[in-house]
Parts: sequence; structure tokens; C-alpha cells
Amino acid sequence: MTLRDYDAERLAAFTKDINAKYDELKARNLTLDLTRGKPSAEQLDFSNAILALPGVDDYHAADGTDCRNYGGLTGIKDIRALWAEALGLPVDNVIAGDASSLNIMFDLISFAFMFGTNDSERPWRDEPKVKWLCPVPGYDRHFSITELFGFEMLHVPMTDDGPDMAVVKELVKDPAVKGMWTVPIFGNPTGVTFSEATCKELAAMDTAAPDFRIIWDNAYAIHTLTDEFPVVYNVLELSAAAGHPNRFWFMSSTSKITHAGSGVSFFASSTANLDWYASYANIRGIGPNKINQLAHAKYFQDVAGLKALMQKHAGSLAPKFERVLTILEERLGDYGVATWTKPKGGYFISLDVVDGTASRVVELAKEAGIALTAAGSSYPLKQDPNDRNIRLAPSLPPVSELEIAMDGVATCVLKAAAEKAAAS
Amino acid sequence: MTLRDYDAERLAAFTKDINAKYDELKARNLTLDLTRGKPSAEQLDFSNAILALPGVDDYHAADGTDCRNYGGLTGIKDIRALWAEALGLPVDNVIAGDASSLNIMFDLISFAFMFGTNDSERPWRDEPKVKWLCPVPGYDRHFSITELFGFEMLHVPMTDDGPDMAVVKELVKDPAVKGMWTVPIFGNPTGVTFSEATCKELAAMDTAAPDFRIIWDNAYAIHTLTDEFPVVYNVLELSAAAGHPNRFWFMSSTSKITHAGSGVSFFASSTANLDWYASYANIRGIGPNKINQLAHAKYFQDVAGLKALMQKHAGSLAPKFERVLTILEERLGDYGVATWTKPKGGYFISLDVVDGTASRVVELAKEAGIALTAAGSSYPLKQDPNDRNIRLAPSLPPVSELEIAMDGVATCVLKAAAEKAAAS
Repeated sequence: MTLRDYDAERLAAFTKDINAKYDELKARNLTLDLTRGKPSAEQLDFSNAILALPGVDDYHAADGTDCRNYGGLTGIKDIRALWAEALGLPVDNVIAGDASSLNIMFDLISFAFMFGTNDSERPWRDEPKVKWLCPVPGYDRHFSITELFGFEMLHVPMTDDGPDMAVVKELVKDPAVKGMWTVPIFGNPTGVTFSEATCKELAAMDTAAPDFRIIWDNAYAIHTLTDEFPVVYNVLELSAAAGHPNRFWFMSSTSKITHAGSGVSFFASSTANLDWYASYANIRGIGPNKINQLAHAKYFQDVAGLKALMQKHAGSLAPKFERVLTILEERLGDYGVATWTKPKGGYFISLDVVDGTASRVVELAKEAGIALTAAGSSYPLKQDPNDRNIRLAPSLPPVSELEIAMDGVATCVLKAAAEKAAAS
Repeated sequence: MTLRDYDAERLAAFTKDINAKYDELKARNLTLDLTRGKPSAEQLDFSNAILALPGVDDYHAADGTDCRNYGGLTGIKDIRALWAEALGLPVDNVIAGDASSLNIMFDLISFAFMFGTNDSERPWRDEPKVKWLCPVPGYDRHFSITELFGFEMLHVPMTDDGPDMAVVKELVKDPAVKGMWTVPIFGNPTGVTFSEATCKELAAMDTAAPDFRIIWDNAYAIHTLTDEFPVVYNVLELSAAAGHPNRFWFMSSTSKITHAGSGVSFFASSTANLDWYASYANIRGIGPNKINQLAHAKYFQDVAGLKALMQKHAGSLAPKFERVLTILEERLGDYGVATWTKPKGGYFISLDVVDGTASRVVELAKEAGIALTAAGSSYPLKQDPNDRNIRLAPSLPPVSELEIAMDGVATCVLKAAAEKAAAS
């Protein structure tokens, strides 16, 4: 029997009980934060050795480049080769940048907007309308970029295999649809990994726009919570084989591997796409920070070193995810008021509460001193049409705080559900 | 008596002699490079200590920020405060970024182009025409940016006090003139430092465009070749006092102070301008590399530490500049075929040869294995209307190579001048 089926008397009793629990929660005057997918201090400590790298006498790349001087737009081969091997891509199609792959994604869209892509008939700013596919729920910072450029953002529902391909294939018949956001492995916030079939369909499908681009933001490609690493499908190869060699802008970074915000970003794509990017990036600047790239190459040493580090992260993160899932099950499992994802990697759990109550849950939590990502954040324009989705980010707080926070969130979910049931 | 005044017989003798010298030069099969303003290995060595900073247990900013994690768009106060003090600016108006100030300059123009500045009536892309003032000779990478955006670049002659202000004040009466490139201290390539009067006039002058911006690229503000540091005029204050608080986009970086390409950039401006920039930069990314900023703050320690480092650079660079100037004087002084600047700081000497021969000099040097910056590089669209200017960059080669290269360049200047004289 779920909360929705309670009769008035039982609902009143439940409400009295949950209100008392909520008052106790508020009385604790908590200050807890589940908002952003930041690594914890424990995770950051894993990579403290990099803070003294590359070291005072060690500034040459393997090919002899003095990394202290200007030059080299593509980044140094030392780190490009390591990353290409880790992701199963050809090194010539992988370039290394500064810390943020988000910066590169912004620039790609901005260059396409101002000047057009290598396959565009005209700059996107001269198109009467640009539309963009947004699998939902998705990553808020992606949607903020396409919002800024005034693109019309079209929702695509997420399934357990990735975006609903029937919807995608219908929408790309419109030539105004120029691209699509994706987080193909351990997605933000669902934790969903696109199936091989989905990857192949995205690579092979026909699109009306000749300059259709998929931003393949592989931010969590090796961010497992288990002993298994996911398969990273080579979408560059798949799309080239299907006759769409320039379809994917493949992004990656070390931000949640070494230190967030001072890592190395990567952009992988066809040679034509990389040349197009370089034609503008070369005017924007003289090249990325090679010293930081060298420090990373020396720190990882090889792909085995990289994977060993990711296992340490899993060791730190997996218990937190387990505690969150256990508390959700224990506190909410009996009431039919919420569903949630059970990811095997990444940084997020996606929690769906009773329709129309997500913003109320976030409000209640805030009043009790628990900061949650704003309701709607996982949707374009921050508008969740069902007011249903909440993104939980378990990584930052220590387990003891996380338990208190999640127990509090569960109380808020139940209280909001009870309020909704009473009103209907 | 200058070459131009030689009679036919004397010119023929001179030509025979210089041709023989040039043939000797070619026979040496040199491979020398005077193209870019790169620091030498000796200069880079000064700062090798930074390659092990901030150090494994030392990752907190002075305010307690864990620099390893995400966040902080303005950069950390540790380095912002040091830089603000070095340049005489208020710390709240100075933000610190990643390695490249050129990146920020590109983004400022790109944001203005796509969205308009905080004082614009409309995005610059919607203006019928955008014009831009380019003091010449100037920095080739500046001009490449405004070329990319399709701005009409208007030449402004440089004087010993900076750009010719009579020309500037006339041109800014046109509302299509939206901005101006400058390198106000030890300019690229002239070495000229704008006088106080020029700074005040630039701050105070009326412009037809309400959103007129001066990119104040103070790349060499403390890059002295002597014991004296130049005065850095606070143009933010001057322009605010004159009623134009948002006029200046003030840029700086450590690129030729620590290690080129892995330093810290700075952007100083009015609060309104910084807020406008942040409104887009915050969507472009999550903030700059704080670990690198912390490493720089720890390395410099304070402004005295910074200035001591700049004196080491002067100790390395000044003898190179002196050798170049001596060779130019010894080889060319008697013939009236060239003039050159004698900078007290910066990275360049600007050499003016006989009109119509700069590209021939560069061609002759190339054939003799001496790479010079392409003729015309210091002008918009790489077109020097007089084919006169050559930028010399003495910093990179060791003195022994520099002497050989400069002697070779002098030979090429004389040979080209003789060819020109014979043809006229």
C-alpha cells in the first residue's frame, strides 16, 4: 500500500509523524551540502604527489620539447598518447588542452555560432533558428551554454540504454536541429551508460542538417564504482564507417581524476574537425599549459597507473553511493513516493519524487540546512515539466554527514508527498 | 654620404662587395631564428623552482580555499593581491585566469561580438560595420583576432609617446569605431612606452561609440632592460575620473616572467566590466587553474620577489639588445638605409629598412638560413603599406648565435638597399 492509497485518517497520522520528524531535523541546525559533483578531500589527497610535479629538473616532453616555452596547440604527445590508449582512440585524433573540457565545448559552439562548422553552409548565427537535442534529465552546465546562444532546446527522454532513439531519429529530420548534448557513460545525473546499439544508431542515423554535431561529453568514461571499467565505444570510427566522420565532438578530462579544476582536458574528433577547431583556437591563443600536461603524464605513468587511481576513487565513492541507496530504500521504499537510479559509476544519483513536489522537497531541505541542487536544474531552462527530478551528489561530504543529509532528504520527500496527497 | 647618394660606379663597387659578403653568409648554411619573442632557456631556468610548487602538502590559499577543488571564477586572492600591488591597481578590480591573457582578449571581443558589451546598444555582430584602431607597427596576434571578426582595421601611426593622438581623436568621432589595440609599455615591436599625457588623453577623450573599449595589453609592464621600472599609469582610475569608467580592458600575465605558456593571466577592469565578463565566462567554465596560481604566489612571495626576478631577466636580455644595437650601428650606421628603435624594455627591436625592401630582406635572410618574422607581420592583414618594417626578437638565441644572425641581417639589409638603389 503506497502513500497515495492511504485513507484520510492514515494520511493524517502519517503527516503528524513526518512533521514531527521534520521539526526534529530543523532543530538540528544542520549545514550540509549535496549540490555539486565535487570530489571529496579524501579523493583529492590521492593525487597530492602531482602538486610537486613535473619537478625542478624535469621539463622536457618525450619528444624533447621544452614544456616551459610557448608553442604546441595540440598539447604534448606524452599525455595525448596515454589518454588515447585509455579511451581506445587514435592519438592523432586526440588533442590535450587546459583544465576544462567545458571551456572547449563552449568554444566549439561559439566558433560554430560565429563562423560555422567545417560542414556548415553558413554560421549558425545566420540560421533562422537553431534547435538542440537535450536528453533529460541532463547536465545543467550543458544546458546553460545552449540557452545562452538562444538555441531551442528539445527534450529527449532518457531510457536505460541512453536517449530514446525513436524520438532522436524523428527530431533530426528537422534541418534546424544542429546538435545534441550527451554524457554517454555514467551520465549526469542518471548514471545511465549508452548501450552499444544506441552508440551505433547515433553514429549511423541520417540527419537533415549536414553540420549536425553530437557533443560526446565522456566526463565519466573511467569513473567506475565497481571493479569493472565500462567499454568506451569508438564513436569516431563508428561514425566514419557510417559516412558521418565529423559527427562527434568527443570530450574528456582529468578533472575528477586528479584535482578538479587544475587538470587536463581532451578533445577527440576527426582530422577535419580538429583542423577546423585549430583554425580558430590558434588565433585565440598560443597553446595550452604543457607543464601541467607533463605533470599529469609523469603522475599517471601509464594506463595501468590511471586505472589504479580510479580504483582508489571507487573505494572512496562506492560506500557513499551504497549508503545513499540504502537510506533511500529504508526510508522511502515502502511508500511508492520516489524512484531513483542505482549507478555503477559517475557522480550522481537521480531521484524522482512525487510529481509536483521536487521544488517543495528542495525548499524543505534548504530550511533544514541541507543544500540540494535546485529543482529543475537537470532540465533546459531549469524547468522540469513534472517538477519531479532531484540530482543527488554524494561525493563531497564524509559518510557520517552524508547519512544525516540523506535521512533528512528522505524526511523532506515524505513530507512533501504527504502535503501533496492531502491537497489532492 | 648615404647609399642613395652614391654614383653608379660607387654603387657597383658596393654591390659587388655586399654580394660577396652575402655569398659567404649563405655558404655558412646557418639555421638561426629571430622570429618570436620567446624567452631563452637561460631565462626559463630562473624559475625552475616553480616546477615543484605548490608542493605536496601546500594546497590552501591564504583564505583557506582548497585550491585542488572546483570553484572561484575570479582566481585566488593570493596572486590577485600581489599583481594588483605590482601594477598599482585595486585588488577587487583584478581577476586572475589561466595561462594566456590573449585567450581573455579573444573572449572579450567574442562576447562583445555575440552578445554586446555592458554599454552596447546591440551585439557588435549586428552593427553594419565595426572598425578598430590599430597603432602600427603593432602585435601580429592582436591584428589576427580583429581580422577574424571582420573588423575594419584603421592604422594609427606610432610616435615616441604612443599612438598619434590627433589621429586617434579624429577617428573615434566615427561611431563604428568600437575599440583599439594597445601595448602601452615597451610596446611590441617598437618598445615605445605611452607617455602620461597619452594615457590621460586616451582616458579622457570623447568617443562617438558609447561602448568604445581600449585593450590595454600591458604584457611588458615590468619587463625592464635597465635598473628602472616604468610607471604603470592607473588608467582605470583616470578613465573613471573622466567619466568613462568602462573604457579599459587591462591585461597582464606572467608568461615572460615565469614560464611562457604555463603562467597566470590577469584581467583588470571596472566592476561593471568584470561583472559583464563573468556573466559569460561563468557559463564557459567553472574557473581557472587555482593550483597554478598558488604555485606562482608561493614562488614570487611578494612584489620584491617579483621585481628581483625581473632584474635577472634584464641581466640576461640587456646584453643581447646591446649587441643587436651595436651591430646595427656598426654595419648600417653609415649608409642611411635603416633606422631602429632602442628600447629600454620589452622583447623587440623595430627595424625600418629602405621602403619597398623589407620583404626582400626577409627573403634574403631566409635563403641564408636566418628566420625573421615575415615582413608586414606588424601590420593589420600583414600588409605594411611601405614594405619597410621588420620586427627583431633578440631574446631566444644565445649571444654568439645572435651576433651571427644580426650580422647576416645587416648584410641582407644592405644588399636589398643596393638592389633598390640600382633599380631606381
